[in-house]
Amino acid sequence: MRGAIPCNETNLDDWNSEGFPYLCELLFTRGALDVSLCPLIMKKGRPGLLLRVITDPAHGLELKHTILSETTALGVRFHREERMTLAREAIMVSSPWGDILAKKVLGPQGEVIYPEYEACRKIAEAHKIPLAMVYRAVSRAEERKEP
Amino acid sequence: MRGAIPCNETNLDDWNSEGFPYLCELLFTRGALDVSLCPLIMKKGRPGLLLRVITDPAHGLELKHTILSETTALGVRFHREERMTLAREAIMVSSPWGDILAKKVLGPQGEVIYPEYEACRKIAEAHKIPLAMVYRAVSRAEERKEP
Amino acid sequence: MRGAIPCNETNLDDWNSEGFPYLCELLFTRGALDVSLCPLIMKKGRPGLLLRVITDPAHGLELKHTILSETTALGVRFHREERMTLAREAIMVSSPWGDILAKKVLGPQGEVIYPEYEACRKIAEAHKIPLAMVYRAVSRAEERKEP
Amino acid sequence: MRGAIPCNETNLDDWNSEGFPYLCELLFTRGALDVSLCPLIMKKGRPGLLLRVITDPAHGLELKHTILSETTALGVRFHREERMTLAREAIMVSSPWGDILAKKVLGPQGEVIYPEYEACRKIAEAHKIPLAMVYRAVSRAEERKEP
Amino acid sequence: MRGAIPCNETNLDDWNSEGFPYLCELLFTRGALDVSLCPLIMKKGRPGLLLRVITDPAHGLELKHTILSETTALGVRFHREERMTLAREAIMVSSPWGDILAKKVLGPQGEVIYPEYEACRKIAEAHKIPLAMVYRAVSRAEERKEP
Amino acid sequence: MRGAIPCNETNLDDWNSEGFPYLCELLFTRGALDVSLCPLIMKKGRPGLLLRVITDPAHGLELKHTILSETTALGVRFHREERMTLAREAIMVSSPWGDILAKKVLGPQGEVIYPEYEACRKIAEAHKIPLAMVYRAVSRAEERKEP
Repeated sequence: MRGAIPCNETNLDDWNSEGFPYLCELLFTRGALDVSLCPLIMKKGRPGLLLRVITDPAHGLELKHTILSETTALGVRFHREERMTLAREAIMVSSPWGDILAKKVLGPQGEVIYPEYEACRKIAEAHKIPLAMVYRAVSRAEERKEP
Repeated sequence: MRGAIPCNETNLDDWNSEGFPYLCELLFTRGALDVSLCPLIMKKGRPGLLLRVITDPAHGLELKHTILSETTALGVRFHREERMTLAREAIMVSSPWGDILAKKVLGPQGEVIYPEYEACRKIAEAHKIPLAMVYRAVSRAEERKEP
Repeated sequence: MRGAIPCNETNLDDWNSEGFPYLCELLFTRGALDVSLCPLIMKKGRPGLLLRVITDPAHGLELKHTILSETTALGVRFHREERMTLAREAIMVSSPWGDILAKKVLGPQGEVIYPEYEACRKIAEAHKIPLAMVYRAVSRAEERKEP
Repeated sequence: MRGAIPCNETNLDDWNSEGFPYLCELLFTRGALDVSLCPLIMKKGRPGLLLRVITDPAHGLELKHTILSETTALGVRFHREERMTLAREAIMVSSPWGDILAKKVLGPQGEVIYPEYEACRKIAEAHKIPLAMVYRAVSRAEERKEP
Repeated sequence: MRGAIPCNETNLDDWNSEGFPYLCELLFTRGALDVSLCPLIMKKGRPGLLLRVITDPAHGLELKHTILSETTALGVRFHREERMTLAREAIMVSSPWGDILAKKVLGPQGEVIYPEYEACRKIAEAHKIPLAMVYRAVSRAEERKEP
Repeated sequence: MRGAIPCNETNLDDWNSEGFPYLCELLFTRGALDVSLCPLIMKKGRPGLLLRVITDPAHGLELKHTILSETTALGVRFHREERMTLAREAIMVSSPWGDILAKKVLGPQGEVIYPEYEACRKIAEAHKIPLAMVYRAVSRAEERKEP
């Protein structure tokens, strides 16, 4: 699966970054594919952050406006990136605590099953067991053949 | 306000850090005063993370167990830190969108009003306006005298 | 406002980074639009830095030469980025310590006034008050209509 | 298992950090228990690194001398930290590629088996398979009862 | 020396990054020109890493497959970068411990001699002297005219 | 040279960090021995910064007040650290551009001469040559015997 997607970036050095979790959710709601912040040192020794937002091409403009409204950025830079992605599929795997949602990915060397964070987290909370224990169980699990 | 509090630390280099948001909530529920992760380079060039958990002294042991259950840490280091903290108070400030919870802090140079993230976030979501706009409004607001 | 600008990058792992503040000033003097350093882990577990220099297109070559002279980089990579920038304007705002230079930005959701670091810093130094206090005053200030 | 151990720290801003992998090996050879580097911003906007070396108490002085000889540090700060560590044991687990060394750790919620990086790496190199595949196999493995 | 080269990137938030040193060696063996990891904050407050692999154009596909096999990445983004590189040459310099391999680089302001990490490291190990001392000696050395 | 000194720390997640260069200068003016900022991930996925200020014991209180006035910190944690420092001496070394201030340090393996950033920077600016060239010259220089 391939396709060119916009990558938007801006350097922030005067932003109250407490707003990042909210910004992040807004961006995903409005079509972002990936959001990240990276720590920087900027001019005059100011600590800063590089905000990168990979977008669905259809929502590029709305996401730029979101960045410019929610942060102190005065501009957004962007370029296109090509992409190669693996085929993936939602599956159910069995666990001592019942079936759990996971994802099956077709990698270059065969299928791999990865836990889904939110699904594991719900099990951990409900059963008051470590999340790490749920992850380990999913890694050991077989895909449930019959739904 | 002063008092010695334990600071627990562990270096993690083989942890699936996807579990950090969950760990963080667990730790606060169980008495943590502050939690942070700091990026590291560890032996053999492994990327790692320094987890630091400042605790209420009464919950030190339970929090160490949480760290040891939820991460791949094989140990926790800890030392005591003294603390100086400012007096603070929850207040209401008026805004174009109604009264908003904020905090008033008595600093060395007088009182300062700081926005409360969660309170501002709710306003931003309810009114579909930038969080930054709510923050700016709170910064400009007067404390509401009459409750 | 839009336009393609070069983004130059180089990974540094054997540089005495003490020279960064000087390099930074040189680059701005010679036409850089933005300069940042980002912490990296590089091959063999070496700590490194990613230097990024966004340039005015007219000065691209001179800036590459500056990077290659001042650091231990053996090469510079570069690509072009598009840009969307907000209209901005220098303004004066009134404060308890006299008028202060600030900037007015026309964002997607209306005008916003941002403090100018250097202007606020001068006030803080002259009046021996916290810089944070000056910032808060500017955030509360009205634009001075009559010059 | 508990005991107070020295934690040595120094801030480096004029070090050619290319030497870190070598320094790291030296420190472990001479009795370090853990070594890490953390990215910093220091005075005048200089990028820097915080070197932390947790030591076996018997080798504290030799390790301080190593830090002062190998880096540009002009001093080392240190304090003592308490420690709580989990019991652990080297075990063999079976895998499709033969038995592999792993470690069994007695955590607050029972036994957990963790892969050993170097052992898995050797398998990955010998069989030209992804290291991630070996890790997953070890996570699924049972401890070999009979040696 | 100039030429367009692919830059591959992926954001990792559920990877056991202990495997980075192995991944790094694999990538260089298979044609990578540069590899780096940069610390990130990703969605939901997850700590993450940006893996960047600059490749020889001929090995782009093999390196993408390596990234997708060895990490938990579900995709790789890539774009082309132009490059300007300095002419360089392997040379021998004389030192109190015999001749040492170094590199001579033709920079915009003349020739500069840089130490070679691995060559200096071997001297430091063999003579049990600080690596920093060998580096300083190489910086002071003259190129050996006669081979 | 040894002695216990206070190390003050605070985690900042709602601070406009643009003020760091100013804060840093203030802290040094008022008796700080070292100041650093380290990037963090804090609760709810907020990006944050760890501010550490190593102080001369006599100025501990004034520096805590400076931190609490200039940042949004509501408290400061502190503990004492022991220190081992090397004897050092200001010296002049000769260079193609005249004598330059440097420092001579008595390390565990003998004397080492380190360039002084500000002195080298002035030479680089005055002669319009790379700072890296001045550093290299100082590294090669002999101490000037006669003052």
